[in-house]
Amino acid sequence: MKKIYKAHILYTKEQDRFQVLPDGYVAVDANGQVEAVASDLASLDCREAEVIDFTGRLLIPAMADLHVHAPQYRNQGIAMDLQLLPWLQNYTFPEEMKYADAEYALRMYRRFLRDLWRFGTTRACVFATIHTHTSRLLMQLFQQAGLGAFVGKVGMDRNCPPGLSESAAAMVQGYEALIDEFIPKGHDASEISLPPLVRPILTPRFIPSCSPDMLRAFGELAAKYQLPVQSHLSENSDEIALVRQLEPQSTCYADAYDRYGLLGQTPTVMAHCVYTQGHELELLKQRNVMVAHCPTSNLNLATGIAPIGYFLRQGLSVGLGSDISGGHDLSIFRMMVYAIQVSKAYHHQHPDHPFLTLSQAFWMATKGGGSFFGRVGSFEPGYEFDALVINDADLNHDNYTPLERLERYIYLGDDRQIEHRFCRGKEVPEPDMAV
Amino acid sequence: MKKIYKAHILYTKEQDRFQVLPDGYVAVDANGQVEAVASDLASLDCREAEVIDFTGRLLIPAMADLHVHAPQYRNQGIAMDLQLLPWLQNYTFPEEMKYADAEYALRMYRRFLRDLWRFGTTRACVFATIHTHTSRLLMQLFQQAGLGAFVGKVGMDRNCPPGLSESAAAMVQGYEALIDEFIPKGHDASEISLPPLVRPILTPRFIPSCSPDMLRAFGELAAKYQLPVQSHLSENSDEIALVRQLEPQSTCYADAYDRYGLLGQTPTVMAHCVYTQGHELELLKQRNVMVAHCPTSNLNLATGIAPIGYFLRQGLSVGLGSDISGGHDLSIFRMMVYAIQVSKAYHHQHPDHPFLTLSQAFWMATKGGGSFFGRVGSFEPGYEFDALVINDADLNHDNYTPLERLERYIYLGDDRQIEHRFCRGKEVPEPDMAV
Repeated sequence: MKKIYKAHILYTKEQDRFQVLPDGYVAVDANGQVEAVASDLASLDCREAEVIDFTGRLLIPAMADLHVHAPQYRNQGIAMDLQLLPWLQNYTFPEEMKYADAEYALRMYRRFLRDLWRFGTTRACVFATIHTHTSRLLMQLFQQAGLGAFVGKVGMDRNCPPGLSESAAAMVQGYEALIDEFIPKGHDASEISLPPLVRPILTPRFIPSCSPDMLRAFGELAAKYQLPVQSHLSENSDEIALVRQLEPQSTCYADAYDRYGLLGQTPTVMAHCVYTQGHELELLKQRNVMVAHCPTSNLNLATGIAPIGYFLRQGLSVGLGSDISGGHDLSIFRMMVYAIQVSKAYHHQHPDHPFLTLSQAFWMATKGGGSFFGRVGSFEPGYEFDALVINDADLNHDNYTPLERLERYIYLGDDRQIEHRFCRGKEVPEPDMAV
Repeated sequence: MKKIYKAHILYTKEQDRFQVLPDGYVAVDANGQVEAVASDLASLDCREAEVIDFTGRLLIPAMADLHVHAPQYRNQGIAMDLQLLPWLQNYTFPEEMKYADAEYALRMYRRFLRDLWRFGTTRACVFATIHTHTSRLLMQLFQQAGLGAFVGKVGMDRNCPPGLSESAAAMVQGYEALIDEFIPKGHDASEISLPPLVRPILTPRFIPSCSPDMLRAFGELAAKYQLPVQSHLSENSDEIALVRQLEPQSTCYADAYDRYGLLGQTPTVMAHCVYTQGHELELLKQRNVMVAHCPTSNLNLATGIAPIGYFLRQGLSVGLGSDISGGHDLSIFRMMVYAIQVSKAYHHQHPDHPFLTLSQAFWMATKGGGSFFGRVGSFEPGYEFDALVINDADLNHDNYTPLERLERYIYLGDDRQIEHRFCRGKEVPEPDMAV
C-alpha cells in the first residue's frame, strides 16, 4: 500500500545544497520506492494511500556506511594509542580469529547489528573474516534485521597469522557457497525488481595480505559472477611502500588491483585513498571506483588526511565509512562532522582547497555512499525509501529553522533522537539481541 | 560525616600513567576532601564512616572545562561552515546582545547548566557577556546547582557592536559589585577553609576588543583584588597580525597582556595558544599561565593545531576547553578524544613530536585543568572530591579491564553512563530547568 509521510523533509539531490520542504510530503509506493515529494498534499496522488503524520519531525535519508569491519566490534574504542601495524598484530588479528567460533560471532554480530540500527545506518559495506560459516551468519542477521548490506568474507594468505590464512581455492569455494545461497538464480541486473538487500561482496583484505594467486582468484570470481569488490587503498605511506615492493610491475597501488581485475571491472569501493593522486586518481575516475572516506580512522591511526574536497571537485564518487575499529564511532552523522573537520585541517595546510560544507558531507553520507547500493540516499522519484525520522525536541529549544535543526542534530545529536528508521520502505524495528 | 566509596578507581597523579585501583576505596572527609585511597578497606580509618558501594562502577575525577562561552549556548552546532570573523559578526555578537534580557538569560543559562552537569563537568572557566546583572544571574545559578566556576563578565570597548561595548569605568563598577557579592569579606588565600565554589574572574575578551584604557583597568582590578584572569591568546594568524598592529610596542601577543598586568600576575588561563612559541612560550612558562586547549574549536574554525604535546614537555600547565560555540561539544570526555586526534594530525606533520596518550589527555581534563580551581582533579590526599561514577554496563559487554573500560567510555560513552556526580564531596543533583 502506498504511504505518504508528512514532516520537515531534507535531502541533498546535489552536493552543494539541501532540498528543504518544511511541512512537506513524500509518497512511497508499495515497492518501497519514492514516488514523489511535494510541499502540499494536493499535488500528490493520494488515492489508496495511508498518510503518516510526522509533523514537526525531520525526515531525512538514512545513513550509508561504506567501510566497517564487523568483527572488530569488540575492539571499538580500545588500544587507540597504537599505530596501524602493532594494532593489527596485537588487537585486530587475534580478535578476528575468534570468529571461527559461531557462538562468539553470533553474540558479537548481534550487538554490532543493533548498534548499526541505533545510529540510523540502513546500508553498509562490511568486512567479515575469512570464515565462511560466520560470514554467512552475519548475512543472515542482516536479512533478519531488515537492513541492507554487502558483506565480504575476507581473503588473506600472506603477512597474516596462520589462523587467518586461507588458500585461494578455499576462498573460492567459500564464496561460491555464499553466492549460491544469497544471489537468486537467474537474477539479472536489468530486471525491474530490486536486488536482494543482503549480498556478498568480494573482499581481498588488501594487497599486502593477498598473494598473486589470491588476487587472481578474486578477479576471476568478479568476472564470473559480476560481484562487486571492496578493499583498502593507499591508507598510509608504509603500506604504499610495501605494495610497491610486493607488486613491482604496478604503476601505483590502485594499478595493482586493476591488474587483477579488481578496480571497477565490477562496482568497487576502496577505503581511505589518503595518498591517492595523479595517475591513481585518474584510474579511480576512469573506473568509476567509489572512495570510502574514513576520517576518524585516518585521525586515530595518524595516517594523514585524504583530500576529499579535491576528489569531489574531480568528480570522484565518495561516501563515508566508520571503519570500526580503526575508527571508534559507528555513527555516520559523526562521520559527517569529522569529514568537515579534517577537511578544515587540510584547508589550513592547503588554503587553495576549500573545506567541505555541511551539504557536501550530508551528500556523501546519503546519496554519495548510497549510490553503491542502487538508487539509495535521496528522495528523488525512484529512490528506495531509506529514511530516518528525527525527533529533536530536546535539542530544538529555540525555534531553529529545519536546516539549522538538521545541522544541530548532526553536530549534537545521537541515537536518542532517531524515532523511526526505514529501509526500502519498511520500518525497521530494533534488532533482536537475545542469543 | 566521612564517606568511603568503593568502586574501580582510576585517576592520573602523573601525566604519563593511570593510577588504577580495581575494587578500591576512596575516603572523603566531612569537608569534601580526599583523605586517602586504598586497595582494601582494612588500611583505611573507617571509624564513623559511611561506606557507599559502587562495586563494578568506575570512579574517576570529574571534568574541568577551562574555556566555555555560556551565552553562545544557543548557537551550539549551527553555522559551523563559517570562519572566525563572519561567525563573530553574524552569530556570536548578535546572540550575546540578547543577554541584556534577564528572562532570556535565565532560560538559556539554566539549559547550559543542566548540560554541563549532564556531561560530568563540575568546574568551569566561563565567559558570560558584558552585562553585569545576567553575569550575576549565571553565578547564582552555578551556586544553586552546586557546581564550581569562575565566571567572567566580559570586557569590550572596541571592534564590537555598540550594544556590546562598555566603558572601562562601567566595567570596573560592574566587577566591584560582583566582587562585593561573591568574594567573602576578609577572605584570605592562606586560610584553611576552602574558597567559594563560584567566583568572578577578570575577562577582557581579547586584545582586539579591548582598548588600552580597558586593559589598564583590568590590570588594576587584578592587582587590587588579586582576582584571576581569563582571555584568548594566539588563536589564528589574522588575529595575531591585528594585535601586532594594535599593540605595536609588544614583543608578542602574550606580551600585550603582560604589559597590562594580565599575564600571570594573578592566576591566568589563556584559551587556544595555537601559535604560541619561542618568546611567547617562555613568557607563559615564567608566568605559570594555564593554557586552555580547545581542539574542536580549532578544527571547526580552521585555526590550526596547537602543539600541546610540546607544551606539556616544556612544563606548561594545560587543561581542556569545550569553547562552546566555536567548539560544538560540551563533553570534556570528547575533548580528550579530539585532543588525542589533533595531536596525531600534528604528529603526522611533525613526526618528531609524539602524539598525546590517553593518560595525558585524561590528566589535562582532570588534574591539569582542575589545578586552576585549587586541589581539584585527582584523588590524592587533600584533593577536593570532584568525582563521577560511571556505570558502563551497556558498553562493557565483554569483560574489559577497568582501564579498557575507561578508554571505551571516553571514546564511546556519553551522559547516559554517568550515574553520580560529586563536587567538593557533595552529590550534585540535576539542576532545575524550570523557569
